[in-house]
Amino acid sequence: MHVLVNAAMSADGKLASYRREQLRISGEMDFDRVDRRRAESDAIMVGVGTVLADDPSLTRFDRNHRDAVGGTGVPARIVADSQGRTPLDAALFDGSAPTYVLTTEAASSDRLEQLEKAGATVVVAGKERVDLTAALSELERDGIETLFVEGGGELIFSLFEADLVDELSVYIGSLLIGGRDAPTLADGEGFVDEFSNLILIGVERLDDGVFLQWSVE
Amino acid sequence: MHVLVNAAMSADGKLASYRREQLRISGEMDFDRVDRRRAESDAIMVGVGTVLADDPSLTRFDRNHRDAVGGTGVPARIVADSQGRTPLDAALFDGSAPTYVLTTEAASSDRLEQLEKAGATVVVAGKERVDLTAALSELERDGIETLFVEGGGELIFSLFEADLVDELSVYIGSLLIGGRDAPTLADGEGFVDEFSNLILIGVERLDDGVFLQWSVE
Repeated sequence: MHVLVNAAMSADGKLASYRREQLRISGEMDFDRVDRRRAESDAIMVGVGTVLADDPSLTRFDRNHRDAVGGTGVPARIVADSQGRTPLDAALFDGSAPTYVLTTEAASSDRLEQLEKAGATVVVAGKERVDLTAALSELERDGIETLFVEGGGELIFSLFEADLVDELSVYIGSLLIGGRDAPTLADGEGFVDEFSNLILIGVERLDDGVFLQWSVE
Repeated sequence: MHVLVNAAMSADGKLASYRREQLRISGEMDFDRVDRRRAESDAIMVGVGTVLADDPSLTRFDRNHRDAVGGTGVPARIVADSQGRTPLDAALFDGSAPTYVLTTEAASSDRLEQLEKAGATVVVAGKERVDLTAALSELERDGIETLFVEGGGELIFSLFEADLVDELSVYIGSLLIGGRDAPTLADGEGFVDEFSNLILIGVERLDDGVFLQWSVE
């Protein structure tokens, strides 16, 4: 599976203010770029924190580009949700695309039933935290070969920690957000010695910021 | 006064791991660039957190470049230290360059005397937190017209909050550090609505990362 992590951050690495309100960091050119990459993907993934904060539908993509690259249907939607906290009335359950909830044995069977009734395909992997390696293998068996990850920082760090990321794309907007408690591109516990090494493969001015692309060593 | 903030961060906006151990993020070309900018500056500034973590001497600069731009002497050293916590045996007090400690009325007069005996010029501005606007005016009266700020994230945020920054230079290294508690380029409380707007004025590949320059609106 090819896993691309994509995010827009401020010059100081923040995805939002410490209040976690959604914030427009990138501009039209970056939105178009994101819509094309979504169109090339079999699925779009977020963490449950992002679902709870923003209630995204994850249905936007560039239809023409998907047709051009021979894609069929629409990208599936995936939420990593260890405890099954995705609200049953989340926009993800609008029925417009297949939706997976990756969860763990810590979620109650009642909750899993409710999520399935809401329309989710539930994948249980791990005891307390989603075993992302196992869960992504399960998705691969379902035909998901290209995964576009949109955050937030907890999920992104977990994916790097599990060595599952192939590519990192970051749009850096020309603003400074600040805040020791503001969410960053990669939160979680953090690495101490063995950092993830990246290889810079693209640098491009875009809108009023800059777009950077790395492959992961 | 012209205030330039300079830092090296990871792709996810971190200055170090959550353990705050010093970490080499940039390479030789960026070090040379920093040494030239230090050489053009009347003073180099850090926060007390950086002094306590790294004990920097702040004496390194490009002597030839300083001569070429007509600079005399050596850049002064400045530490922002609200409570007077700079250790009396800090490398900053090695006598090799003028050293200022910016502090507040919260620091005891005993402590201020000790700092002066250690060689510091003490500037008291503010009650609990350094009033940076007042302190920088005081430095300006002492002939300091160009200030090169090297961090950490608490000081950088305070300077942006007080609207004192003219220019932001960031080297982004090709690694991912992660960590919700790791220090970032701009910590502090963080902005909520009124973010600092930047204007991207330079994008350059440097070493195995990228160097970005912004002016502050």
